[in-house]
Amino acid sequence: MSGTDTTRQMLAGGPAIVLVEPQLGENIGMVARAMANFGLSQLRLVAPRDGWPNRKAKSAASGADHVIEAATVHPDLASAVADLRFVYATTARQRDMIKPVVGPAEAAARLRGLVEGGTACGVLFGRERWGLRNEEVALADALVTYPVNPRFASLNLAQAVLLIAYEWMKSAGDAAAAFQPPQVPQASRQDLIGLIEHLEAALDEADYFHPPEKRDKMALNLRNIFTHAALSEPEVRTLRGVIAALERRWAKGRRQG
Amino acid sequence: MSGTDTTRQMLAGGPAIVLVEPQLGENIGMVARAMANFGLSQLRLVAPRDGWPNRKAKSAASGADHVIEAATVHPDLASAVADLRFVYATTARQRDMIKPVVGPAEAAARLRGLVEGGTACGVLFGRERWGLRNEEVALADALVTYPVNPRFASLNLAQAVLLIAYEWMKSAGDAAAAFQPPQVPQASRQDLIGLIEHLEAALDEADYFHPPEKRDKMALNLRNIFTHAALSEPEVRTLRGVIAALERRWAKGRRQG
Repeated sequence: MSGTDTTRQMLAGGPAIVLVEPQLGENIGMVARAMANFGLSQLRLVAPRDGWPNRKAKSAASGADHVIEAATVHPDLASAVADLRFVYATTARQRDMIKPVVGPAEAAARLRGLVEGGTACGVLFGRERWGLRNEEVALADALVTYPVNPRFASLNLAQAVLLIAYEWMKSAGDAAAAFQPPQVPQASRQDLIGLIEHLEAALDEADYFHPPEKRDKMALNLRNIFTHAALSEPEVRTLRGVIAALERRWAKGRRQG
Repeated sequence: MSGTDTTRQMLAGGPAIVLVEPQLGENIGMVARAMANFGLSQLRLVAPRDGWPNRKAKSAASGADHVIEAATVHPDLASAVADLRFVYATTARQRDMIKPVVGPAEAAARLRGLVEGGTACGVLFGRERWGLRNEEVALADALVTYPVNPRFASLNLAQAVLLIAYEWMKSAGDAAAAFQPPQVPQASRQDLIGLIEHLEAALDEADYFHPPEKRDKMALNLRNIFTHAALSEPEVRTLRGVIAALERRWAKGRRQG
């Protein structure tokens, strides 16, 4: 889906996204892209398997260069989270730990409040195949889990990050749709009545309303169609043009017949 | 993130996910996985570039075999959506169309209400590089857009699907109350396409579309009027009767002239 516009504001900031021992460069790149899509920019890598920088990561990031270039690499999780004051760990499995467990939306709301209050925050994501070790989860203040299909719970790494980033963006409060529909006002009642009367006249000419005793009911049905259609003024004009065209055709047919 | 458990319930159902001319098998597979993660199971493919079945799709689905195996292939969008009664189109770009625009959460809540009321629904996703054509968007009742970073708005196909699927899952339980399905079901897309084609044929006869180079734009306007009008099945029949009456009148005029 395209839509990138370089004249617009690049959103950045938010909690750090911490990937623990990520394996594939492609996954790191897709994480960077997902972060950029929803305004996150701090990526921290704990002992990435294939080293750093990583050509495949850059390619998979599809232009999220600001995230890739600012990414930091750390030898272990402890050093990656050293400066953070509130940390979530994402997990799909039940953990035998007494920590709060929340969904992505609730986590994002909490992060939003903390980050805007000046608290450095982070979210931990485990290895592609088997997630986080218990001692890594133990470094987190709370857990985030996803409302997944119980029978198919295995989320791709970039998608797990995407959902946090998406909820982060939504938590801004003004996460209104990226664009609003064009503000074309609905047609006035007068225009609408004009359309309906035009159509009814054409249909009278065409002997549409029969038997005659059903005319009122049939006309009412038509009125309801055009009133619930929420037509704009240009649309009413278009429909009048349609009716006029069909009428002209009839007149022309008669002249030529 | 692991966590799949074969003893648990496999969630399925929900709106159909319709991919228009997807290019890479990997993307189709990742879409299937994202759907399975959040309980969607109906995948429809319109003219996939590399044919179907696709080995790479199956591999990228990471075990979402039930989605891949049930996927259906269609020669064009019209046949893919023929049986659907409510359709969203996802889009990142501003469209010059008067249709409601909502975010993924609002779309999911509406879909939840409709699907639980027995209405067949779908969500359209465009090609990886450039999305949906205007005439494809015109087949939808409403648009979904994402609250993306204005400067980095390009969402990966599987991630666009993921967000809809995730919101679909979240909408379980609390959404049904918010939206009541209409008392009279909306017309199927097939009926609606039939109406539009009938009208266009009548207008071609009537020389409505001129100059010829404006035909596409004029036809698109008409399509948009009838898709955003939320017509019921009886209403579509009524409008076809209206067009038929105006056509007959013309034929009669010619005979009598």
